[in-house]
Amino acid sequence: MRAALYLSAGDVIVDEVPDAFLAEPTDAVVRVLRSCICGSDLGSYRGVITRAARSRLGHEFLGIVEAVGADVTSFRVGDLVVAPFQWSDNTCPACLDGLQTSCANGGTFGAPGTDGGQGEAVRVPQADGTLVAVPGGLDASGEELLPALLATSDVAATGLHGAVLAGTGEGSTVAVIGDGAVGLCAVLGAVTVLGAERVILMSRHADRQAIGKGFGATDIVEARGEEGIAAVRELTGGLGVRHVVEAVGTPESWAMAMGMAREGGAIGAVGVPHTMPQLPLFEPFIHHLSINLGIAPVRRYLPDLIARVTAGTLDASPVFDTTLPLAQVAKGYAAMSARESVKVMLT
Amino acid sequence: MRAALYLSAGDVIVDEVPDAFLAEPTDAVVRVLRSCICGSDLGSYRGVITRAARSRLGHEFLGIVEAVGADVTSFRVGDLVVAPFQWSDNTCPACLDGLQTSCANGGTFGAPGTDGGQGEAVRVPQADGTLVAVPGGLDASGEELLPALLATSDVAATGLHGAVLAGTGEGSTVAVIGDGAVGLCAVLGAVTVLGAERVILMSRHADRQAIGKGFGATDIVEARGEEGIAAVRELTGGLGVRHVVEAVGTPESWAMAMGMAREGGAIGAVGVPHTMPQLPLFEPFIHHLSINLGIAPVRRYLPDLIARVTAGTLDASPVFDTTLPLAQVAKGYAAMSARESVKVMLT
Repeated sequence: MRAALYLSAGDVIVDEVPDAFLAEPTDAVVRVLRSCICGSDLGSYRGVITRAARSRLGHEFLGIVEAVGADVTSFRVGDLVVAPFQWSDNTCPACLDGLQTSCANGGTFGAPGTDGGQGEAVRVPQADGTLVAVPGGLDASGEELLPALLATSDVAATGLHGAVLAGTGEGSTVAVIGDGAVGLCAVLGAVTVLGAERVILMSRHADRQAIGKGFGATDIVEARGEEGIAAVRELTGGLGVRHVVEAVGTPESWAMAMGMAREGGAIGAVGVPHTMPQLPLFEPFIHHLSINLGIAPVRRYLPDLIARVTAGTLDASPVFDTTLPLAQVAKGYAAMSARESVKVMLT
Repeated sequence: MRAALYLSAGDVIVDEVPDAFLAEPTDAVVRVLRSCICGSDLGSYRGVITRAARSRLGHEFLGIVEAVGADVTSFRVGDLVVAPFQWSDNTCPACLDGLQTSCANGGTFGAPGTDGGQGEAVRVPQADGTLVAVPGGLDASGEELLPALLATSDVAATGLHGAVLAGTGEGSTVAVIGDGAVGLCAVLGAVTVLGAERVILMSRHADRQAIGKGFGATDIVEARGEEGIAAVRELTGGLGVRHVVEAVGTPESWAMAMGMAREGGAIGAVGVPHTMPQLPLFEPFIHHLSINLGIAPVRRYLPDLIARVTAGTLDASPVFDTTLPLAQVAKGYAAMSARESVKVMLT
């Protein structure tokens, strides 16, 4: 089969690899219908993170179950399934707490020795605990729902988790720092799933602002730094915002998050803190802040998000502004790295 | 009147100062019956924090109202009152959120231009929003309740707040790092006020362990560092603790807190992060931790804590293992700085 491979920073190709196969009785093999490129894939592409040469790429995908191991009971060949970006047994203490990204038997697609989502098929470990079937399968969803379903495999759930970590609830006022796919999905999750009343999106790109407004952002702030903080404070009667989603992950964005948070506010952060290894503690201490971090446990949210997609009440697919065939994956990486594309879907 | 003055690191005296007086119509003057020395007072005593020469000391006290300004409506001369360590109007947005230590009109006793608790009398700004009367006054409480009442002015409430920030609730398992007065009071608050079922106290001092057990600690762990983490994990089925109170404030104690926290756990920290300016973010991100900090809003808890003291159901006074007259305050500082005393009460 063919799959995307990482060669070195800036160099991604599609090449022949061994076919995906059932290695364990708890595995399934999924034939990929759609996958995508994640902001987190750009770390190695930009040379910020070390990655093994010829390692597989991609961790967001959906497809059709092609084979199941002897111990798999929840799926049959032909099922349309969505995979969260990590596999999990969904039975260990962490999974039972809804923290499937801390699963004792979990792992990430694309890690050494595993298949990646950006390929023709994927071996899915712990299939029963990992995959979620789309009710009615492809017949019910049709091709047109696939982008919205694909978005639930990471960004829609990750953005939602950021809003959850920020303590967002019915009627909340929320600020979202970052207008990438995750930030935009934080807007969508805050409004559509959690019932936020007001969402302030920090964005200076007209196209992303438009998506954010479509997702329910009520206010757009283009200013950054101290000016951005002042603008958000002005929008909130000088008090700041109780719920801040930090979806950039730089010292500057964290400083903004802390600066615009209301006394006693909460900051939710779902990005890998590669460029923000240390958080100054004095400011959160003075202002009674709650700092909540985590790798989004997509599996927790997936059944609900899929149900919303099939019911037509949630659609994060506007974050996919570019669609390419797998063969052109390199073009997709280049476009996202150059910020010419918010997010690339692969067919 | 006489009051404790800071001269320089290691040099504290009692000297004549101007009598406390009503400067604003919202002030009260309180004749101090009991005050104490706080762990946070030791920062300047040890030369870690800069402090103005001849500035007043102390922020924990109780006493009798001696005079009230024209706008003070809640208190009368002769009332027995407890002061939290900061004053607050109790009407601004932060106060209404229960964050009186972020009061728009607040301040700390002992700050430049204010009276300190370690003196014969104190001018209390924002008296209506700050002081809490002890029902029945001195006649009802008697001298014997004064130490327990005094403890509510800071440590009892600060320890409780640490447990609150750690998310402690009915039936919780909690770990407390730090066996100073605040750590010990975190044990007491977790058990007595919040209903924790199991509290693991990290302590290697027999006298402090005894107080901790008296306050409800169910387990004592003497080991520190990786060994301490392993011991706590062993006590919790390998999973770690959902609720950790960090009451030391060093990189080592924070590392322990993060190491013993269960996936998705919460860390509550109430100490000034002088020696812990930066928190590494990668570990909390990987383990879904919630980091909650703040200067304890004692005023929020004070009415409830005073009611528990007068009802005989809460008594943090065992943290006072030394009692000295105000004239010997220097001896008290030396004893606490040398860790010969957990906490010194001044009469």
